[in-house]
Amino acid sequence: MEGPTVPVITFLSDYGPWDEFVGVCHAVIARRAPRARIVDLGHGIARGDVRGGALALRAALPYAPAGVHLAVVDPGVGGERRAVALRLAGDGRTLVGPDNGLLTLAAETLGGVLDAVDIGDSPECLRPISATFHGRDVFAPVAAALADGAAIDGLGEPVEAADLVTLSLPQADVDDGALTAHVLSTDVYGNVSLDAGGELAAAAGLRTGDSLLVEFDGGATAARLGRAFSDVAPGELVVYVDGRGALALALNGGSAATELGLEVDDELVLRAR
Amino acid sequence: MEGPTVPVITFLSDYGPWDEFVGVCHAVIARRAPRARIVDLGHGIARGDVRGGALALRAALPYAPAGVHLAVVDPGVGGERRAVALRLAGDGRTLVGPDNGLLTLAAETLGGVLDAVDIGDSPECLRPISATFHGRDVFAPVAAALADGAAIDGLGEPVEAADLVTLSLPQADVDDGALTAHVLSTDVYGNVSLDAGGELAAAAGLRTGDSLLVEFDGGATAARLGRAFSDVAPGELVVYVDGRGALALALNGGSAATELGLEVDDELVLRAR
Amino acid sequence: MEGPTVPVITFLSDYGPWDEFVGVCHAVIARRAPRARIVDLGHGIARGDVRGGALALRAALPYAPAGVHLAVVDPGVGGERRAVALRLAGDGRTLVGPDNGLLTLAAETLGGVLDAVDIGDSPECLRPISATFHGRDVFAPVAAALADGAAIDGLGEPVEAADLVTLSLPQADVDDGALTAHVLSTDVYGNVSLDAGGELAAAAGLRTGDSLLVEFDGGATAARLGRAFSDVAPGELVVYVDGRGALALALNGGSAATELGLEVDDELVLRAR
Repeated sequence: MEGPTVPVITFLSDYGPWDEFVGVCHAVIARRAPRARIVDLGHGIARGDVRGGALALRAALPYAPAGVHLAVVDPGVGGERRAVALRLAGDGRTLVGPDNGLLTLAAETLGGVLDAVDIGDSPECLRPISATFHGRDVFAPVAAALADGAAIDGLGEPVEAADLVTLSLPQADVDDGALTAHVLSTDVYGNVSLDAGGELAAAAGLRTGDSLLVEFDGGATAARLGRAFSDVAPGELVVYVDGRGALALALNGGSAATELGLEVDDELVLRAR
Repeated sequence: MEGPTVPVITFLSDYGPWDEFVGVCHAVIARRAPRARIVDLGHGIARGDVRGGALALRAALPYAPAGVHLAVVDPGVGGERRAVALRLAGDGRTLVGPDNGLLTLAAETLGGVLDAVDIGDSPECLRPISATFHGRDVFAPVAAALADGAAIDGLGEPVEAADLVTLSLPQADVDDGALTAHVLSTDVYGNVSLDAGGELAAAAGLRTGDSLLVEFDGGATAARLGRAFSDVAPGELVVYVDGRGALALALNGGSAATELGLEVDDELVLRAR
Repeated sequence: MEGPTVPVITFLSDYGPWDEFVGVCHAVIARRAPRARIVDLGHGIARGDVRGGALALRAALPYAPAGVHLAVVDPGVGGERRAVALRLAGDGRTLVGPDNGLLTLAAETLGGVLDAVDIGDSPECLRPISATFHGRDVFAPVAAALADGAAIDGLGEPVEAADLVTLSLPQADVDDGALTAHVLSTDVYGNVSLDAGGELAAAAGLRTGDSLLVEFDGGATAARLGRAFSDVAPGELVVYVDGRGALALALNGGSAATELGLEVDDELVLRAR
């Protein structure tokens, strides 16, 4: 029961569930690429949180079929930032979005950028191009054109891959049995995701089941290195490897971020007690 | 790689992201019209906000492929209001929803109503028809039947197009270098959309870059006529043409609606300083 | 214009609209079963509210085409609870999710369980299986495999249907003209759904239009037995049959749950005045 392959466009944004922005982008895609299937990766990124969007995109894309990957978290819309399409090495994915670092973490993970073009004035754009809704007028129509088979070279002027905007992330470190890590992101439940994975915890000599001391700006607290929330009693802290593969801190039945007053980029030191 | 054209049903409502209402309507459509593709235009209209829904629908539909356009914002469900399907002039779209003004703004924009039928007792309805969930029992099955090729005439008794409920919107006005406008809607970020577009601003002699005086009930404030948020410093007001083509008021990094205490229908006067 | 039947996967969860969890599950399904159509039944179940999810699933599934029905409300993820796939009698549906009672209400309504298998270590799982995101690593890939035609027997070890976890719900009762019922769930608007339908109200002698006395822990109040919100004035209470077929209590223009301080499992006594 084979049929022709259906092109896939994944879509991630900070447009949220309240306005018609996501739906209008879907409508634009449905007109330009009626056969394409849209896979919404999520639209609940905090408004303008480019790094949060970049981390979510990097976490999600390896699970998606190769296709066109549209992402819009774009606080600089209407300003000087470029709009780009990036063709990746590896399995032939194309990323479409603003050139503000949103795409580059995923691009690195998935093979690196082969070609980049500036799509801000692409022939595929809907005109007049509004100053505030490039999702509709620039990114969605270009993504749809790519899914419909358009060649990336025809969509705009080449950009040097080395000139793309990248994000600088904090760097976790192991020293003398202590893991120094930083808050990369927090989710709506107050779970705190760090810039270290299970292998760095192991390198620091931390083992599942260990009782840990977690030092942070403002204090220190006990936690257990576990596998899931259920490894600690309600009200207790667990350090575990989260769904993104990152070491994370959670409070069973509460918000670790609120309880410890943690924010993005805060530093934590974890060691066995 | 051509195939048969896939019928499109767009769907807009105030059902929100929390309950199963949207999903059940999708399920009903998937049974009655398995080939149809549903394009969600958004389900975050404020509960019962018919005008907000009508404005969002008018803004979104021109970007959608011609098809069946389902919309449900229905505070009068279970009461006397009619349920209708409207066949439009132009490119053959059909609108389905309550006859409370939700559909008529879009209908006018897209060519006007050719035929209207009362679908409240359509043979396509799921029975027993609940008194509170006509999205599932009336609107979704009728929309699915239309997408599946059913003729509109078979779906109910004819209604005179002139008898359809319409919305009365405020009317912006230019006089002596001043633009008198009104709040049509506000979005979740507190951006305030007015009943005037860029052409009325031009008619009032306002030019991009101008410093404006904005008078409203309760005071007056300065703003700049710009293209995007980034045209003003954080904490400053910008007047710009928003994604819907409407003149809008935004506070860079804040909520203009909260800051100025603006609500729907409030009057504003804008003039150059 | 017939084509091959498209397999349907419905999906309900408590993942919410903010994170990328729903989108990643969609991505996993799109890779494993590119032809399957996903019908989201809703992802706004309160976090970890297994009973709320079970009630929503039971309400929604009868409207959905027979297919694979994925549901994830899984507070015990990473712990001892089983992951299961259930083949139902009747029209050949398969349910996939945690064995915590989430699936069993719907299974009973739709024909009962023919076969059950433990899919926690299925060959279809994505490995390594994370301890906290079985939606991605266990449930979605197994649901996709089933939609793609995989036989349920190959997906894991058989489980006795009688050993599946079930929910115990409160039981409404009629005695001497009084209906004793309990709060099954409340929705985001504060409407309160009870464990009784219209037939029990009739058995208690309550008729549409009747003025009712509603007794609850903490007081008693008047309400009207109506068909829709519009049957009472703003600020008044209406008892009606909601979209799920359950007797429900709503405050026109407000939240009945908040006004009466009602929570899940609270007992109410309704009688004619």
